[in-house]
Amino acid sequence: MMTGDEYRASLRDGRRIFLNGERVEDVTTHPKMRRSVDLIAAGYDAYYEQGAQAFNEAYEPPRSSEDLRNRLQMLTKWDTSLVTTLESLAALRTAGQRMGETDVPYRHRLEDYIAWCQENDVRSVQTISDAKGHRDRKIADQDDPDVFVHVVEERPDGIVITGAKLHISAAAITHEMVLMPTKMMRPGEEAYAVACAVPVNAPGVTILNSSIAPLEHEIEEHPYSKTRSMPEGFVVFENVFVPNERVFLNGEVEHSATFAHSLGLWQRVGGISHMAKNYDMLVGLARLLAEANGTERIPHVRDKIAEMVIHATLVRAGLEAAIANVSTTPEGWVTPSELYTNAAKFFGAREFSRMLAIIHDIGGGSIATVPHPGDLANPETRPLVEKYMRTMEGVSGEYRTRLFHAVRDITASDFGGWWQVAVSISGGGLYAQKIVTSKHYDMNHAKDLARKAAGLEDFPT
Amino acid sequence: MMTGDEYRASLRDGRRIFLNGERVEDVTTHPKMRRSVDLIAAGYDAYYEQGAQAFNEAYEPPRSSEDLRNRLQMLTKWDTSLVTTLESLAALRTAGQRMGETDVPYRHRLEDYIAWCQENDVRSVQTISDAKGHRDRKIADQDDPDVFVHVVEERPDGIVITGAKLHISAAAITHEMVLMPTKMMRPGEEAYAVACAVPVNAPGVTILNSSIAPLEHEIEEHPYSKTRSMPEGFVVFENVFVPNERVFLNGEVEHSATFAHSLGLWQRVGGISHMAKNYDMLVGLARLLAEANGTERIPHVRDKIAEMVIHATLVRAGLEAAIANVSTTPEGWVTPSELYTNAAKFFGAREFSRMLAIIHDIGGGSIATVPHPGDLANPETRPLVEKYMRTMEGVSGEYRTRLFHAVRDITASDFGGWWQVAVSISGGGLYAQKIVTSKHYDMNHAKDLARKAAGLEDFPT
Amino acid sequence: MMTGDEYRASLRDGRRIFLNGERVEDVTTHPKMRRSVDLIAAGYDAYYEQGAQAFNEAYEPPRSSEDLRNRLQMLTKWDTSLVTTLESLAALRTAGQRMGETDVPYRHRLEDYIAWCQENDVRSVQTISDAKGHRDRKIADQDDPDVFVHVVEERPDGIVITGAKLHISAAAITHEMVLMPTKMMRPGEEAYAVACAVPVNAPGVTILNSSIAPLEHEIEEHPYSKTRSMPEGFVVFENVFVPNERVFLNGEVEHSATFAHSLGLWQRVGGISHMAKNYDMLVGLARLLAEANGTERIPHVRDKIAEMVIHATLVRAGLEAAIANVSTTPEGWVTPSELYTNAAKFFGAREFSRMLAIIHDIGGGSIATVPHPGDLANPETRPLVEKYMRTMEGVSGEYRTRLFHAVRDITASDFGGWWQVAVSISGGGLYAQKIVTSKHYDMNHAKDLARKAAGLEDFPT
Amino acid sequence: MMTGDEYRASLRDGRRIFLNGERVEDVTTHPKMRRSVDLIAAGYDAYYEQGAQAFNEAYEPPRSSEDLRNRLQMLTKWDTSLVTTLESLAALRTAGQRMGETDVPYRHRLEDYIAWCQENDVRSVQTISDAKGHRDRKIADQDDPDVFVHVVEERPDGIVITGAKLHISAAAITHEMVLMPTKMMRPGEEAYAVACAVPVNAPGVTILNSSIAPLEHEIEEHPYSKTRSMPEGFVVFENVFVPNERVFLNGEVEHSATFAHSLGLWQRVGGISHMAKNYDMLVGLARLLAEANGTERIPHVRDKIAEMVIHATLVRAGLEAAIANVSTTPEGWVTPSELYTNAAKFFGAREFSRMLAIIHDIGGGSIATVPHPGDLANPETRPLVEKYMRTMEGVSGEYRTRLFHAVRDITASDFGGWWQVAVSISGGGLYAQKIVTSKHYDMNHAKDLARKAAGLEDFPT
Repeated sequence: MMTGDEYRASLRDGRRIFLNGERVEDVTTHPKMRRSVDLIAAGYDAYYEQGAQAFNEAYEPPRSSEDLRNRLQMLTKWDTSLVTTLESLAALRTAGQRMGETDVPYRHRLEDYIAWCQENDVRSVQTISDAKGHRDRKIADQDDPDVFVHVVEERPDGIVITGAKLHISAAAITHEMVLMPTKMMRPGEEAYAVACAVPVNAPGVTILNSSIAPLEHEIEEHPYSKTRSMPEGFVVFENVFVPNERVFLNGEVEHSATFAHSLGLWQRVGGISHMAKNYDMLVGLARLLAEANGTERIPHVRDKIAEMVIHATLVRAGLEAAIANVSTTPEGWVTPSELYTNAAKFFGAREFSRMLAIIHDIGGGSIATVPHPGDLANPETRPLVEKYMRTMEGVSGEYRTRLFHAVRDITASDFGGWWQVAVSISGGGLYAQKIVTSKHYDMNHAKDLARKAAGLEDFPT
Repeated sequence: MMTGDEYRASLRDGRRIFLNGERVEDVTTHPKMRRSVDLIAAGYDAYYEQGAQAFNEAYEPPRSSEDLRNRLQMLTKWDTSLVTTLESLAALRTAGQRMGETDVPYRHRLEDYIAWCQENDVRSVQTISDAKGHRDRKIADQDDPDVFVHVVEERPDGIVITGAKLHISAAAITHEMVLMPTKMMRPGEEAYAVACAVPVNAPGVTILNSSIAPLEHEIEEHPYSKTRSMPEGFVVFENVFVPNERVFLNGEVEHSATFAHSLGLWQRVGGISHMAKNYDMLVGLARLLAEANGTERIPHVRDKIAEMVIHATLVRAGLEAAIANVSTTPEGWVTPSELYTNAAKFFGAREFSRMLAIIHDIGGGSIATVPHPGDLANPETRPLVEKYMRTMEGVSGEYRTRLFHAVRDITASDFGGWWQVAVSISGGGLYAQKIVTSKHYDMNHAKDLARKAAGLEDFPT
Repeated sequence: MMTGDEYRASLRDGRRIFLNGERVEDVTTHPKMRRSVDLIAAGYDAYYEQGAQAFNEAYEPPRSSEDLRNRLQMLTKWDTSLVTTLESLAALRTAGQRMGETDVPYRHRLEDYIAWCQENDVRSVQTISDAKGHRDRKIADQDDPDVFVHVVEERPDGIVITGAKLHISAAAITHEMVLMPTKMMRPGEEAYAVACAVPVNAPGVTILNSSIAPLEHEIEEHPYSKTRSMPEGFVVFENVFVPNERVFLNGEVEHSATFAHSLGLWQRVGGISHMAKNYDMLVGLARLLAEANGTERIPHVRDKIAEMVIHATLVRAGLEAAIANVSTTPEGWVTPSELYTNAAKFFGAREFSRMLAIIHDIGGGSIATVPHPGDLANPETRPLVEKYMRTMEGVSGEYRTRLFHAVRDITASDFGGWWQVAVSISGGGLYAQKIVTSKHYDMNHAKDLARKAAGLEDFPT
Repeated sequence: MMTGDEYRASLRDGRRIFLNGERVEDVTTHPKMRRSVDLIAAGYDAYYEQGAQAFNEAYEPPRSSEDLRNRLQMLTKWDTSLVTTLESLAALRTAGQRMGETDVPYRHRLEDYIAWCQENDVRSVQTISDAKGHRDRKIADQDDPDVFVHVVEERPDGIVITGAKLHISAAAITHEMVLMPTKMMRPGEEAYAVACAVPVNAPGVTILNSSIAPLEHEIEEHPYSKTRSMPEGFVVFENVFVPNERVFLNGEVEHSATFAHSLGLWQRVGGISHMAKNYDMLVGLARLLAEANGTERIPHVRDKIAEMVIHATLVRAGLEAAIANVSTTPEGWVTPSELYTNAAKFFGAREFSRMLAIIHDIGGGSIATVPHPGDLANPETRPLVEKYMRTMEGVSGEYRTRLFHAVRDITASDFGGWWQVAVSISGGGLYAQKIVTSKHYDMNHAKDLARKAAGLEDFPT
């Protein structure tokens, strides 16, 4: 296994990284990336064990409901990088399993690759969204064929790919990218039915990054996002060679959606695990605000917090139901229920803006206008803040000032905006989750119940 | 155990029953009640076994999550009377358990009563909502002390009670009423802290009934409600004597809410079991309508059905989570999670009107204006209905006519109206469910998460 | 002008009417229709003036915002029949105006027909929804060509039509039906591009009726619907001859949607006029319930009524905006704003089920279980109802019993169900109203604002 | 009248301003304030006319619906400072009018002050929210009496006040603050019933500012907020002397809420004017995103934009109805309808988060992850952005990149967060708007309609 420092060293590997239009020579020291690297390094240190046999259990498949529950519980405490590693490898494992016996060569490659990742303790990111061009056109009708990643050359020892993958969080500070088709490909689109693994420092890979990480002097205003921002990667592949053993799909259009669907499940179940926790955190935040303002007994405030509680409980109920209704593969691996996972993910994403709106309603204007932490540091202004932000015994001016800054950081800032978008589109977006829920819902059972209720059993179906 | 006919005979016991202002001499033959009696009788016959040891397992407590799941699954197929029997006896059992060691006398009485009910295979109804008078006044400030049931006389061998209990479905055709205080009583309200069991034919009991049961000639238009309507009882107690062994609480105001809370849990978990099934049925109905109209592939119709699917899945997720998170008493009885039960009940009740509105949107005007079944019977009009209600191969005019009648019966009729009200208020109403969810939510955990997210661990709590 | 009795006499004209599968010989005396006839007759009597020049001003077009406002105000007090007459004639007038100069022959016929209706004081109904068959097929692909009304024969003096029109309220007790195509017809569907007027007693016309009108002995339970139920007509046209002067469109597919759109506007503005009033009535009902229960000061009840108030106010705001933003034809006739009319109609229809759900939440179980009016008539039961339904000084048991019956009748009964469906689908259904709002919205203006906000004015549009 | 430069000069008046904990010597040159000053200066230049008689018409009261409509139309184009000036002076005018004849001294002072503001072309801000302390305690029970601004000394020539006012946008760069009680004061709280005008540079006034204004190098990422950010002022009053002629209320508790209510009306009608325009802008943004992605014909995207259109239209309908239903004072001044203004404000604020959520849903992940403008400036990275952000003819990579940046800036950034909070709480918060709508709703009319519908006219009310 790697230590944090070994991880840092591993990132100085010639990767071609830009941030805000400028080349980043060393991601481990750049002021907008350093902090993200430190987070992941801390994750390495936390799980480090010596010895060649040692490995992080994140790489292992869960084998029971209880095991899955524990895994998802732990996942909410991991750094982003360990989460994406689990999700991408679990997706490969599920995809391999779903492709079944007919695709043995790929399956062996997948297993070898997962084992290699585990042995070398490397972190990987799922790499899926293409540039896409015009969303309502077929690939053949796009002006530029590269708007979806595709094979531009077949070689005896591998393939060469071109295209771009978007919204790849933390790509710049991880090791491996696991590429998958973003959607189902059709006959004629074989070159686009490609899944493979590519190291971040592979020749031809360029990552343009944006970042909302606070700078050193802004950290006090960003108590939450300071440890949660990751660089967002816009990853370009220009004639990147991929050796055969890292190619997991190449032209088999009938399996082109298998990877995305497998990933979707793991992303969404990871997503609702975080969401269940974060919904609880948001409830807590609302309650802290109410208590700090002295409004927690006012009926309309209680009522709004109760509404948040209901929503938080329903998201968690979806997670509980997904865990209680796993399916088990012949290998003994469990996968959560697609039905409950997707319904909970949809609900949680749909109601998220409402959760934030209630927090804003309860907290009031100071979320937007709270004095700056600098006012607490300046002896000329500090007494004014302490005097007028204080509300009662136990709620000092400083405490309340910092509470409002945290709420602003979490819900009403660059980070809050990023989060709202991320919740809305993660795991494929609201529309996809609705479709997948419907697909896994037992409509025939529902129709039978309806037919029976209507007294129409005797009519032909 | 009793057979259906024995049950019928048991109802001819001198009970004082009115319907629509007229005295009902025999509930088993009255045109507005006969059908309800037949339903319960069929339930008796279905479960009948010979022998003194035989008993209906509805009377037994569940002893594991799996057992609870099976019980709740079965419950959705039972007649109303068996459901209320299970709920009222489970509530008594839970209340006894919650009152704990200090109340041994009541606990023995409760156990003896439950055993007696089981041995004699009698059906009981929970009997809880008082007349209540002015809702915003204390009992002492009510114009009429009788608006809550209370003890008007203590005798050596029992108590005498007066008051009224409302919304008691099926009371007129069942054996036993299990009375509980409708709310928490305070010191000074000891006479109102009374729980007991009263036979329907006890002297002093009068039941005024209303009914939306269809008459014989209206049955074709009511394919659903014809087997689901129960008489709604407005039960008046005028100086009714209750012997000591049937008194389960008498003056202990500190336990006055225990019964209602215990009942609430069982009513709500029963409620969400039905709701999960009924939500599926409503999804199926929407889909049958769309298929019968040929609209099931139209995007906005698909989208609306998908929304129903999400809601149905979330209600069921709540049920699954309630079952997966039971608590177990020292006796080995399991009770479902209050948290998930109440959240799911609230959500299901709140979204119910939306479910019906989507059905109306998808089905369209014929739900209100479909030709009468009589038009299918008349050879002069039948061809017109067959011709113009038909839409395609497999969707005959008669099928589609009957489907619309069923949808009308279920969602847009006297029964549909009754159902909307019942869903809204059953288990104590939306507001109560919100409160109870909040009460069982781990707010301290939520606050800890929030405090940590905000970086405020070091401030005193 | 006609008196009520003249109107009654005019309905005995040989019309072929069925109700619930049985032939109705005289609609004016049939127990399920008589009351509806009486309502319309009362409308005749109310507006009756002697003299050949006298006419009902409902037939005249509004000529200013103020005039339109008064007309819409009056309309909420009219019987259904006068409303449909205004809407159908206004639609004809608007359609004629929209078809413009190129269609002079039709325009003259329309004007002559409107004048004839006015002179003879006849009532007419818009007759639009076809049977439709499979909703997702073109007409040419329907199994039965008659699922849309079409011309089956052209004669020198007129046309012959066949088909059926559905959901035609009050058709059986009115004089004239104004037929229009239910949707836009395309080239090749000329036979279906037909608009015309047909007397109810024309040979070949058959009307199958359903009715939720209460019978004489049920009137006390139906204080609201007893004066609002109209028979719903399923109108079949079998080779019905229409003389040329009653044909307003015959094959001009380019104008086939003009009638439906014109009607849509008038139906919807009529609809929101009623809705604004009815929303106010529902607010009042919620408040009466709260006052009768003593809950009007409880915060969550106040909050829910306030939500109803907001909704009621927004519906009325839409009506106000539609009236304040009329457009005026060269003839000086004003038409309300399509934009505001449709947005308000959509909103009012979408939130309607929520309005009823709040009423149920506030009123509670007695909406479903209130004792029967018969219990007030029987001296044995009346004291029990008076005692236990009473809540305070000024809220007698009888008052509260009757209030709950009214709420049940209005919101949770056969009538309430009919109303929910009618609100959802009237004026073309929610989806159509959304589309029409979008069509009349100034998207280019919105895009310009966005482009300017985004600083993108210099990019080509 | 003042020019922009005269305005700039007028701000160098010794005011005591802090930003982020540091003293600001010159607000006109500070990098976080300069841009805001420039905006207001540009407003001065735009309206500048020479001559002693010249004045900005923003200071004049509207005298007809048409006049009000024009004023509100113009207001959406003004800088913040001119808007707050209009709102605060209109509030004073309305308050003076509402206090009526009995308060002649104040009324004259108010008129003199308004005239003085107009003559000197000074800008003012409403200054209302107090620090408030514990929200659920009376003033007498607060730990610190200063948490509400109050009179600490009465002098013959004026009063001395102490306290703080929060959320005072642009206070640091304006001339006058118009202070009002934040809520109704009760007998015993006379010292708190104080309204007055205080210059920003009055001795004892300190303003702590926070600002989300972008710095010079961040402007490209903030195309919208760069011209809309204003410093948010936390204004502290330490023994500030106010001369009698600037005191508009001093101890008359019965009028203590009159100012806040008057202001509320003008703030909210100003608010819905902006909101109507901004909702249109958001609709336009959603549509631009859909067109840039090629999704504008996909049904679920169309449907979501249609939902936004409905909401935007309803907000505007509320504004139209408020203008069409003005009331007129004896002086001939018109005030918009409280009822419609408040209902529209509530609705617009409640649905705002939903509007943004739809934009995020339609725009997708690039709102959060779009490459930085710097990537367009660097010739090494620009081709990658141009290639992969482009979607079709007419949608270049640069255009689409800048569009996403604008959407991020407007909806998902520090500014977007500020805006969400501001919409939620401006004009007094959602709860206040609900209460005020209810207060102005004609509940007696609603109850009469309900009573009539229920057939209960004969029961005593």
